[in-house]
This record gives sequence, C-alpha cells and structure tokens, in this order.
Amino acid sequence: MKINLILLDSSLELVPKEIISHPAVIRNAKKRNKKAEHTLLDISLHYHAMKDLPNREKRGRPDIVHLAMLMFLTEQAPIKGDFYIHTIDSKLIYVNNEMRPPKNYNRFVGLAEQLLVYGKVPLNSNESLMKVLDIRLKDLKQKYKLGVLSEGGKRVKPEELCNLGEKWLLGIGAFPHGDFSEEVKEVADEYFSISNYKLETHQVICRLISSCLQQLGWP
Amino acid sequence: MKINLILLDSSLELVPKEIISHPAVIRNAKKRNKKAEHTLLDISLHYHAMKDLPNREKRGRPDIVHLAMLMFLTEQAPIKGDFYIHTIDSKLIYVNNEMRPPKNYNRFVGLAEQLLVYGKVPLNSNESLMKVLDIRLKDLKQKYKLGVLSEGGKRVKPEELCNLGEKWLLGIGAFPHGDFSEEVKEVADEYFSISNYKLETHQVICRLISSCLQQLGWP
Repeated sequence: MKINLILLDSSLELVPKEIISHPAVIRNAKKRNKKAEHTLLDISLHYHAMKDLPNREKRGRPDIVHLAMLMFLTEQAPIKGDFYIHTIDSKLIYVNNEMRPPKNYNRFVGLAEQLLVYGKVPLNSNESLMKVLDIRLKDLKQKYKLGVLSEGGKRVKPEELCNLGEKWLLGIGAFPHGDFSEEVKEVADEYFSISNYKLETHQVICRLISSCLQQLGWP
Repeated sequence: MKINLILLDSSLELVPKEIISHPAVIRNAKKRNKKAEHTLLDISLHYHAMKDLPNREKRGRPDIVHLAMLMFLTEQAPIKGDFYIHTIDSKLIYVNNEMRPPKNYNRFVGLAEQLLVYGKVPLNSNESLMKVLDIRLKDLKQKYKLGVLSEGGKRVKPEELCNLGEKWLLGIGAFPHGDFSEEVKEVADEYFSISNYKLETHQVICRLISSCLQQLGWP
C-alpha cells in the first residue's frame, strides 16, 4: 500500500520577467547576493511587486510546497510511492522519495532556486534528488490514473484513497486560493473530496498518510 | 473529543548571553535591523556560534515549533483543545487555539521574537494570541494529567490517546535530539508511544489529529 503523490499548480516559480526590475525584487535579491532572476517569487517579500501579476492569488507561496514536502518525505514507514511537483507555470518536477528536504525554510528556498535555475539538485551528481523533467503533466497519464483532491469531488473516506492501488497518482493543489488550471482539469480522471472543511495541502497529506498507516496497524 | 496539547522542551529561545557578541550573531541581527538579544537562536544561522553551548543538540530549532503550530492550529474541525508551549529554558507559553500562525517562517520568527522580548503578542490588545505565563510546567498539574509521547512509552494506538478525555494534556517533545529534561520527567504522569519508528513532532500531531477525526467520521 503506497501513495503516489503529485502537487498540482504548485505556487513555486522564479520571479517572473514582468516584475524583475521592481525595487522590492532587486532589494531582496541584493540582500541575498543573488541575481533577481535567480530568486523565488515569494508574496511575503514581493506583495506590492505582485499586485498586477496575472493569476496572482495562486502565486508566490513556496512555503506551501515546502510544508507539503516535509509532510510526505519525513515519513519513514513504507507507504511513500512516487512523488512529483507540477508547478503553476507547467513545469513537472521529479522528487526522489528518499530525499530529506531542508527543514529550514530559507534553506529550502535556496534549494528550490538552484533547482529552477539549473534544472536539478544537487548539481554535481548523476543521481538527482529533484529534477525538472522534459515531459508535461499529460504525459504522466501513460503511467497513472490521476485522482485529484478537490472540495467538489466525490466524497470518500481517506482510507478508500489508500486502497485505490498503485496505478493511481493522487493530486493535491499546492496553491493558496482559486481553482485548478485548465491543464489540470484536462488530465484529471476523477475528483475526490475527503472533508466538509476546506483543507490545506498539508492537511490532506496528513489525513492520507494516517489512513494508510492505520491500515498497516500504525507500524 | 478534544486534544489538549503541549510542546515540551521546545527549541525556542532568544540568543543566549554566552554568544551574544559572536560575529555571526551580530551580523545576522544587523541584517534584520534588530538588537542581537532580540533575535531567535537558530542553528541555520548560528551553527558555529553554538558549538560550545550547553545542551546544544536540543537548541536553536524554532522551525520545529513553527511546523508543530501549523499542524495543530490549521485544524478547523472541532478537536482542538488547549494549547501550550513549554520551552527549553522553562518558559510556559499560552497559545490561543483560534490563532492563525504565520505560514511564512520568517514572519513566524518575527512573531516569536516579539513574544519572547515583550511577553505577549499582539502587544496592543487585551486579548493575547500568545502569552508567556508566570507559572511553571508543574503548575499545570492542578488542571491536567500529563501524558508524554516518547519512544520508550507504553505502546498504544493513536485513537486510544484521543479517547483519554479532556483531563489529559498530551505532551510532545519539540526539540531535534536528546532526551526530555528533568523538569519534564518530574511532572509526567504517563509515557505513551504510537509507533515503531522515531517520529518527528509534526508527525505525532498529524497521527493524533487524524485518529480523532476518524472517530468523528472524518467531518
């Protein structure tokens, strides 16, 4: 019993061209001795700079991705399947499920920047912990069926999702507000909902993991 | 069915006097326009400065406290009881369980610094979201029985802890390595273990919350 997981429309990207010369973007990059175009978009730093960006209510929240990665990858029990991150600008990232992501947010930011600038981390190794793939979300359909967790989906108990089988890839939105992109909607095979409450990304992962673990007798 | 939670020996403190004049401490404080004694001890910034600190393997990890707060306080379902943070230097902090902690780590650091410097947050309000109490851990025994989650404890399933009742306060270590302090050991009524694996703080909270929610039928 393994969970294959993909974060969808994840709010993880480098500062986009439109705001690359905004004073706040330049100031924050300078503080960290980085080029502006090599820094992550982060609403806690770039709130004002982001005010005219299209789709901005979904953008600039790498903390959501960080927390989701910590939730899934910390797990030692044998329930971790494949793990991918699909981003809001349609990148598809492979994540080695043995990876131990940095616990500290600022270190995570540094790592994600390296990933998005150079395409993989670590740089000097054949075996990648994270890698930007040259395929698209739709190409994963050759391998998986995509079940998307969504408020409007078919109501199920988390344990039912655990028992779907390893042919399924469970998709969870990793953005703060708004709806899934057209890209996601076009490839979703099924929508599921596990709560009457609006859940955050890490809460969904927590409920899924716990349900699988319980079926294994809480090892 | 509510969980009363306390984080124990939490790795949350201001930079201690012994290292207040270390160059790394001063440099990092200056970058943030803060006095060194008003900044949090953080191993990701102060690793070298901390090398001679007593008990250092338990110290300088505010990220553990941040993640634990996010796990517990994000929950909307009616299972959140009382919430306290006991720190490695024996402070006892009350946390309003309706509080929404900052998602961004750097904002959390700013908030925790304000709390530890001034004793409460927000400063200009009668109603505190977080407050340093003038009682000690042992004084909570007048109100609760303390059940401590620990690898060596009596093996139970998480759902059993959910059913202990609201007289119980469940204690979870919020430090990276090492054993509980003497202060904690002196007040613990019972030790429980919920896994064969060594769990991180946020994993314990996730399993507890999920077990309670399942008993409520995953509302």
